[in-house]
Amino acid sequence: MSADETAAGTVRPGGRTARVRAAVLRAAGDALAEHGFDHLDLADIARRADVGKTTLYRRWRSPAGLVADLLMDMAEQSLPRTETGALLTDLRANARLVQRTLTDPRQGALFKAVIAAATCDPRTADALRRFYDIRIREWAPCVEQAVSRGEVPDGTDSHEVIRAVSAPLYYRLLISGDPLDVATADRAAEAAATAARGGAYVRGKMEVAH
Amino acid sequence: MSADETAAGTVRPGGRTARVRAAVLRAAGDALAEHGFDHLDLADIARRADVGKTTLYRRWRSPAGLVADLLMDMAEQSLPRTETGALLTDLRANARLVQRTLTDPRQGALFKAVIAAATCDPRTADALRRFYDIRIREWAPCVEQAVSRGEVPDGTDSHEVIRAVSAPLYYRLLISGDPLDVATADRAAEAAATAARGGAYVRGKMEVAH
Repeated sequence: MSADETAAGTVRPGGRTARVRAAVLRAAGDALAEHGFDHLDLADIARRADVGKTTLYRRWRSPAGLVADLLMDMAEQSLPRTETGALLTDLRANARLVQRTLTDPRQGALFKAVIAAATCDPRTADALRRFYDIRIREWAPCVEQAVSRGEVPDGTDSHEVIRAVSAPLYYRLLISGDPLDVATADRAAEAAATAARGGAYVRGKMEVAH
Repeated sequence: MSADETAAGTVRPGGRTARVRAAVLRAAGDALAEHGFDHLDLADIARRADVGKTTLYRRWRSPAGLVADLLMDMAEQSLPRTETGALLTDLRANARLVQRTLTDPRQGALFKAVIAAATCDPRTADALRRFYDIRIREWAPCVEQAVSRGEVPDGTDSHEVIRAVSAPLYYRLLISGDPLDVATADRAAEAAATAARGGAYVRGKMEVAH
């Protein structure tokens, strides 16, 4: 198996394959942010990345394959969690990271394009889910540490708390169009921390309530 | 001005214009749910609704115009709020209504299609915002009554509490793909109520914190 044929993510860093992948994913991200998923054209990406069309088709096969690899690369490149020693400030760091990403002109447009594509393309929907799974697993230990410190109740669903921090920010991006500023991020973190402390994310709790 | 030329929303209920509008919007909703916004074709809608193409083009002009009117109709037709006398149970009624809507096969597909279209069509984005403005204004009094009863602090942003109930449900629909069941709805309501009681949605608070 040649280096070109190894699966993305297992390539030797700094090799030709890694350089080709980086150039193609950068071009794919630019094209997505500019024109959306529906106008993603592998021949155009090959031109932008200065890579042979055959290489690109052989390795990524389809726009959905390319977007899946782009999301995997974004997950690998994305920042590690911040640990501040307290749940509220950890969640605030997470919320501000999401807020910065979604308000960055290129990244915000890219996420909108991928989320729109995921509503009708199952492969893109899977790739998007994998991206968020990785990000949620990265940040979940902040909540587990808060459980150990006794800040939030035993049995708190750490993944659900992390999702709760992001949800209001995506709601603004995709639905309400309200401003996505730092105050909004801080409020999302505070709401999630307050609800977690109050036991709203304890697993299995809702099934017995009322 | 003939009845056919009056603006949508001002027509005499039960008249021919209202019947035409109902048939066209039903057909538009079916087509959106089946094929998405990108494949919305006014000639196809006219056929499905058994309405002349000229009438349809004159009155709605474009797929975006048709979707805007469909969202206005959905907002007008949607259920009024439930008032139970306590914030948690009011918000739970709201969350369950959103959950039922988003998991209904036709309605869920329709919302996904419209939200995807709104990411790249400003007119659809405006129409979507107006739809949620109407729904949020309908439910906000539940929070205002909770303020009057002393359940949540003075200065609580009622609109933000209502958005917070919906946000985790839309996050699951569009992003994580996790199941959207009644327990999820109940948890979204409990988290929003707990955070509201703890003062997380008090206006202007975040600007002075830390």
